Amino acid sequence: MSDPFQYRRLNRDDAALLLVDHQSGLISLVQDFSPGEFKNNVLATAACGDYFNLPTILTTSFEDGPNGPLVPELKETFPNAPYIARPGNINAWDNEDFVNAVKATGKKQLIIAGVVTEVCVAFPALSALEEGYDVFVVTDASGTFNEVTREAAWHRMQQAGVQLMSWFAMACELHRDWRNDIEGLGQLFSNHIPNYRNLMTSYFAKASG
Amino acid sequence: MSDPFQYRRLNRDDAALLLVDHQSGLISLVQDFSPGEFKNNVLATAACGDYFNLPTILTTSFEDGPNGPLVPELKETFPNAPYIARPGNINAWDNEDFVNAVKATGKKQLIIAGVVTEVCVAFPALSALEEGYDVFVVTDASGTFNEVTREAAWHRMQQAGVQLMSWFAMACELHRDWRNDIEGLGQLFSNHIPNYRNLMTSYFAKASG
Amino acid sequence: MSDPFQYRRLNRDDAALLLVDHQSGLISLVQDFSPGEFKNNVLATAACGDYFNLPTILTTSFEDGPNGPLVPELKETFPNAPYIARPGNINAWDNEDFVNAVKATGKKQLIIAGVVTEVCVAFPALSALEEGYDVFVVTDASGTFNEVTREAAWHRMQQAGVQLMSWFAMACELHRDWRNDIEGLGQLFSNHIPNYRNLMTSYFAKASG
Amino acid sequence: MSDPFQYRRLNRDDAALLLVDHQSGLISLVQDFSPGEFKNNVLATAACGDYFNLPTILTTSFEDGPNGPLVPELKETFPNAPYIARPGNINAWDNEDFVNAVKATGKKQLIIAGVVTEVCVAFPALSALEEGYDVFVVTDASGTFNEVTREAAWHRMQQAGVQLMSWFAMACELHRDWRNDIEGLGQLFSNHIPNYRNLMTSYFAKASG
Amino acid sequence: MSDPFQYRRLNRDDAALLLVDHQSGLISLVQDFSPGEFKNNVLATAACGDYFNLPTILTTSFEDGPNGPLVPELKETFPNAPYIARPGNINAWDNEDFVNAVKATGKKQLIIAGVVTEVCVAFPALSALEEGYDVFVVTDASGTFNEVTREAAWHRMQQAGVQLMSWFAMACELHRDWRNDIEGLGQLFSNHIPNYRNLMTSYFAKASG
Amino acid sequence: MSDPFQYRRLNRDDAALLLVDHQSGLISLVQDFSPGEFKNNVLATAACGDYFNLPTILTTSFEDGPNGPLVPELKETFPNAPYIARPGNINAWDNEDFVNAVKATGKKQLIIAGVVTEVCVAFPALSALEEGYDVFVVTDASGTFNEVTREAAWHRMQQAGVQLMSWFAMACELHRDWRNDIEGLGQLFSNHIPNYRNLMTSYFAKASG
Amino acid sequence: MSDPFQYRRLNRDDAALLLVDHQSGLISLVQDFSPGEFKNNVLATAACGDYFNLPTILTTSFEDGPNGPLVPELKETFPNAPYIARPGNINAWDNEDFVNAVKATGKKQLIIAGVVTEVCVAFPALSALEEGYDVFVVTDASGTFNEVTREAAWHRMQQAGVQLMSWFAMACELHRDWRNDIEGLGQLFSNHIPNYRNLMTSYFAKASG
Amino acid sequence: MSDPFQYRRLNRDDAALLLVDHQSGLISLVQDFSPGEFKNNVLATAACGDYFNLPTILTTSFEDGPNGPLVPELKETFPNAPYIARPGNINAWDNEDFVNAVKATGKKQLIIAGVVTEVCVAFPALSALEEGYDVFVVTDASGTFNEVTREAAWHRMQQAGVQLMSWFAMACELHRDWRNDIEGLGQLFSNHIPNYRNLMTSYFAKASG
Repeated sequence: MSDPFQYRRLNRDDAALLLVDHQSGLISLVQDFSPGEFKNNVLATAACGDYFNLPTILTTSFEDGPNGPLVPELKETFPNAPYIARPGNINAWDNEDFVNAVKATGKKQLIIAGVVTEVCVAFPALSALEEGYDVFVVTDASGTFNEVTREAAWHRMQQAGVQLMSWFAMACELHRDWRNDIEGLGQLFSNHIPNYRNLMTSYFAKASG
Repeated sequence: MSDPFQYRRLNRDDAALLLVDHQSGLISLVQDFSPGEFKNNVLATAACGDYFNLPTILTTSFEDGPNGPLVPELKETFPNAPYIARPGNINAWDNEDFVNAVKATGKKQLIIAGVVTEVCVAFPALSALEEGYDVFVVTDASGTFNEVTREAAWHRMQQAGVQLMSWFAMACELHRDWRNDIEGLGQLFSNHIPNYRNLMTSYFAKASG
Repeated sequence: MSDPFQYRRLNRDDAALLLVDHQSGLISLVQDFSPGEFKNNVLATAACGDYFNLPTILTTSFEDGPNGPLVPELKETFPNAPYIARPGNINAWDNEDFVNAVKATGKKQLIIAGVVTEVCVAFPALSALEEGYDVFVVTDASGTFNEVTREAAWHRMQQAGVQLMSWFAMACELHRDWRNDIEGLGQLFSNHIPNYRNLMTSYFAKASG
Repeated sequence: MSDPFQYRRLNRDDAALLLVDHQSGLISLVQDFSPGEFKNNVLATAACGDYFNLPTILTTSFEDGPNGPLVPELKETFPNAPYIARPGNINAWDNEDFVNAVKATGKKQLIIAGVVTEVCVAFPALSALEEGYDVFVVTDASGTFNEVTREAAWHRMQQAGVQLMSWFAMACELHRDWRNDIEGLGQLFSNHIPNYRNLMTSYFAKASG
Repeated sequence: MSDPFQYRRLNRDDAALLLVDHQSGLISLVQDFSPGEFKNNVLATAACGDYFNLPTILTTSFEDGPNGPLVPELKETFPNAPYIARPGNINAWDNEDFVNAVKATGKKQLIIAGVVTEVCVAFPALSALEEGYDVFVVTDASGTFNEVTREAAWHRMQQAGVQLMSWFAMACELHRDWRNDIEGLGQLFSNHIPNYRNLMTSYFAKASG
Repeated sequence: MSDPFQYRRLNRDDAALLLVDHQSGLISLVQDFSPGEFKNNVLATAACGDYFNLPTILTTSFEDGPNGPLVPELKETFPNAPYIARPGNINAWDNEDFVNAVKATGKKQLIIAGVVTEVCVAFPALSALEEGYDVFVVTDASGTFNEVTREAAWHRMQQAGVQLMSWFAMACELHRDWRNDIEGLGQLFSNHIPNYRNLMTSYFAKASG
Repeated sequence: MSDPFQYRRLNRDDAALLLVDHQSGLISLVQDFSPGEFKNNVLATAACGDYFNLPTILTTSFEDGPNGPLVPELKETFPNAPYIARPGNINAWDNEDFVNAVKATGKKQLIIAGVVTEVCVAFPALSALEEGYDVFVVTDASGTFNEVTREAAWHRMQQAGVQLMSWFAMACELHRDWRNDIEGLGQLFSNHIPNYRNLMTSYFAKASG
Repeated sequence: MSDPFQYRRLNRDDAALLLVDHQSGLISLVQDFSPGEFKNNVLATAACGDYFNLPTILTTSFEDGPNGPLVPELKETFPNAPYIARPGNINAWDNEDFVNAVKATGKKQLIIAGVVTEVCVAFPALSALEEGYDVFVVTDASGTFNEVTREAAWHRMQQAGVQLMSWFAMACELHRDWRNDIEGLGQLFSNHIPNYRNLMTSYFAKASG
């Protein structure tokens, strides 16, 4: 606590996005967000990866079994992303291909989201921290069985040094300045924040009125 | 309570849909649903109106002022629907054009959703009941300031004889039998119920596996 | 349930407002609303009484004791209202002066708010119903010890035929049509609904922009 | 709903109190109130029975088994009350001794509290209603497994015509007028409503200051 | 409300149990109960049907599709029950085989539980009421998307005259008197109410101590 | 985090108890606990101070004004405790008499509870930490305006090194071993933990059965 | 954790207040506080800035667009404050004018509040920490989309060393001693804490009684 | 925070499981989980101990008194585990036999669960940390009086360096790779995660379809 604090902030040139186990079966286990909110948060996170051109890695666990396939929207958003279908490792970081894919990005900031929070997110987050990466977890695009389970996972990750963020904070920290692209960011928010869209609807109605 | 109960159930040939004041400003006042859930419920309700070919009536209150314009998705879904921009009546039923539009549908079952629940929904619901209509309120496509306000509105409407339903119950009661169109209803659910979509994703992955 | 439903709706010419025991000590017992929300709801209800020129009656219980005096804002809003400091009757309707004051208004619709809900509101509400009045309770300007207590009180009142409303629904049902006075109603909402004020701020900024 | 409403209100000369199965084992099943709140509500209800001299009947189910004995405070408050240790009837009203004890009171208003709400309270409440009694349930001195279970029980009882009340509403409706005994009622509230006691502490400190 | 109330209570000789669409896919949509609680409630309801020898009818909707098969525990508990795999009717009462199976039981009291509450439970409940049956819904063995959806469904069913109960209330109302079988009922509770089991564990430890 | 952890645990010979501003007016501001729970927690904390013979210091702020007097139960429990009626210092540690009283105890472990949490508790807690004391806050005997306010206060205190505890944890850590006085501790728990009392009631009923 | 703790406490001579993006559009996005509570908290924070004569800086983001203008009450409270309408920087600390304005205050303690918490508050808070400032965030005058988002933001800021406070704690820590101005602080609390006002109303009624 | 982070992760060869005071009486005090959820979590934790062959130690406090005996399922799962019936030590680590049993396992990672969280879990957790063990608490198999009490306990343990986990995270971290035993882990999850079981039911129905 006594060391001078250094604000390790997300930088679009330094960051990679890791989407872990957003599979149709596993997502049906999530109950700490309503299904509609969770879906929106995951798609918004993916849209950020796409919009900011972040190197993105997809990984799944046992797609052929009850866990189900990766949700199709993620496949469609990142058709060329490395896709690691893990043969059994629960912690994605235990999978050599996955770690190699991460290293190949050459980025030192890792943004992680996944299902379920205390396993598929927390485990690789802690492993990556140990390797010296700066780790950011997108809390609202990561889901689990209930609020108690989530809180325990957050405590463990915070204790280790993970930075917990919402997808909106991630987007804003990456974008830095509206002037970099007003329309693009506005579109992103309009698509995924209904009340922001409402503000825009009211505004442009008036503006054109 | 002692009279024999008659199950007045929704019938796609007897029902009309009334969407009241889903305007960009007013919707930003809604806090008894998360914005994402509410948006989905409203769009799902509209999708049902479209899918079941229900005569649909749109109405707004002071579009040119702070209340803001009707959300554009509803305009796009029902380009040819009667559209009553009320000049000042708070209760839509106090507006002759609105009532005439309702009567012109020739339907006796009215499905109502709107913002805010205790005013824009409850007032015309009670007026229509008095006129002898069967009234169904889509509870989750109707929003208001907070849960306490909603509960009071529900109590008042139930007391009067309104039937309270979710959009999903409305859809199912209108459809009656999956065999009428398996694919269409499945698509509707897939679009608006994320976990139902997940079930389908898992199922068809396996089926094609 | 089988009788034709009659929509008994608030009419500004037929309604009187009864404010029961909003005293500084008793209000500190209220925990089913946050203190800030409750204060705003009570003042908004009073502002409606004033704005719509409703005959208003104030009553208190044991002002000189621990219950404390009527909150000063209500006295100031209604300096000429009948003010019944009850010498001991818990149910205001058991007090002859109070009933006489109600009768003197000549109104048949009684709007009641007070502290605490299950006693100071519910008791006179049930008594007035029995006397043939139409009774409307402003649910969010009536407070009590906790949510469980409130729900029991609401159930009992609904069962008897009381109409439960928020102050906003009351205001809208009384006003009927914005054209009766756009500015006045807008001011009322701006004063007591922060997000409505925000809509207006955005709107007029743009309009004058 | 169309019949003239009659306010059947509690009258200390017409009412009897029935305390059903407040046993040490069964109370440990209650989770819709915190244990401290529930204990206070039960003791406050008992204190009302004592204070208003209501004929009171105690009954238990299988005291010698896991359900445990009646909590000692109730025995101490009502040392001479009829005490029906039911040999097996779940619905106390199915026990002839219990019904006889009720009839022996000669009262037509029955106030019921017990554990658990949907069984030990709801069953005799519905039976007594059928026999023509006016039935009042003390909702906050009746506990059950969780809130969902409670709500279902309340719905069923309200539907049948039971009047749901808090112990505080019961006390106030029985007392009618503070002048009947200011000090006695004040003491009752001071003992069981901590914030009312605080009001009194502040008041008398000042008064004697 | 003015008619004399008749307590229509469950009677083991008059009641049949209808379990509607407890399928592995549909259950994964339920979010108004935690998955563990819901599973326990459904199995407890089934155990009651078995224990009280209630004629039981199983029905499913599209078992071969995403809805998934009936959960195996129910099949195992009722191997000889009529099993109606509906080819498409959403409301089970629209299926002739189902209604015939109900009629074949010769019972006039129908206990219904299912997934989801506002459709698979509410629709046949309302249809059966209209046919003159007494209808009891096991609220905690019936699940849906969220609490708001549940509340709307409960309101609609209560309004129609359905009696809402928990599985525990159902069990107790059917059993009537512990003396009918102390051990059997105790075992049922021990299996499905963990804290009741704890009471028994403590009691028998002491008894044998 | 890398230093070896030292478990600074409460020791009855090293600890003093500081009760800050439990005044009748201030307590009525507390809404993050129900009034009944909060009262019980404060009295249980005081009972521990008494039972473990902890040097105890009472302090108040402006007793003669709206804040009201110290609640009488605390005065009665600690008739001989130093009693610092602060003339104006908000942080009790800014009051020389208070600090002197603390120093006079010769203890290095300070247990603090008070109203409101983020001021009357947090301020002296942080001041004492700075002076090198080990500080323990009794979280459930410290109350404030709402849960959000409480959480911010807890975060700030935890960050500084305060140990957050419930009164029950405090009691157990001080007692160390039931054999030090089974009956005394049992009585303490029986008085303040209703369900523990129930366990004892069931146990001794059986034991004497 | 092992370093001696230093209580960095707010000092009115060392502190500046930064109000970030309290704009009419952005505030309508806030859902982790009720609108009424949030408005009161923001105005109370501003009133503290005014009352304690803190150098105050106002900043906004895109006032001319959907975000809307600064709420007028803030402009009115601080007519002469530096007002930085940022042309695009999301993190106010990225704006040179803003940082210069902060430096010009010559203060080392920065109190920050704004909308939304995880961006407009957290970003400059982390930047200022890095620059060596002591940073205090007014948690209840900072709002965001929902509770989950807020918690993540709080975790991130606490981890970095931000001190989280309510506006009431800020006011008390700045004031230090009631004797500095009893009336002024009392007025501040009376205006923004309804139950404190009630205490004062009761007190002065009695005092003058 | 500035030291390089080391991910101390659970390793099945390094870990022992300590189950503290899961006794029938004490468990009835738990109200921060529903009884059904808590039972499932405890049994799942025990099943993990068994499945991963972790050296397991059982301990109880005053089994012969009101606390009641260890729940029988734990005895049955670990018939040969060291079983320390503590004669009075509240902190199990104060009991020499218990510490010796822990040491005898030769493990350096201790997984602890128990009742109640802030005492029976937190005390030995802090003691073991001080002795240099890595400590993991199974948060959802540890219960207490209410959520506030739990949160305080979690804060204290996190502050000290305890790693907070759910039973599911524990299982996954121990298992590392599904390929170690797909069927075994699948069975464990199927038994204790109802929705995972549902996924498997749907999957295998289809697979065999």
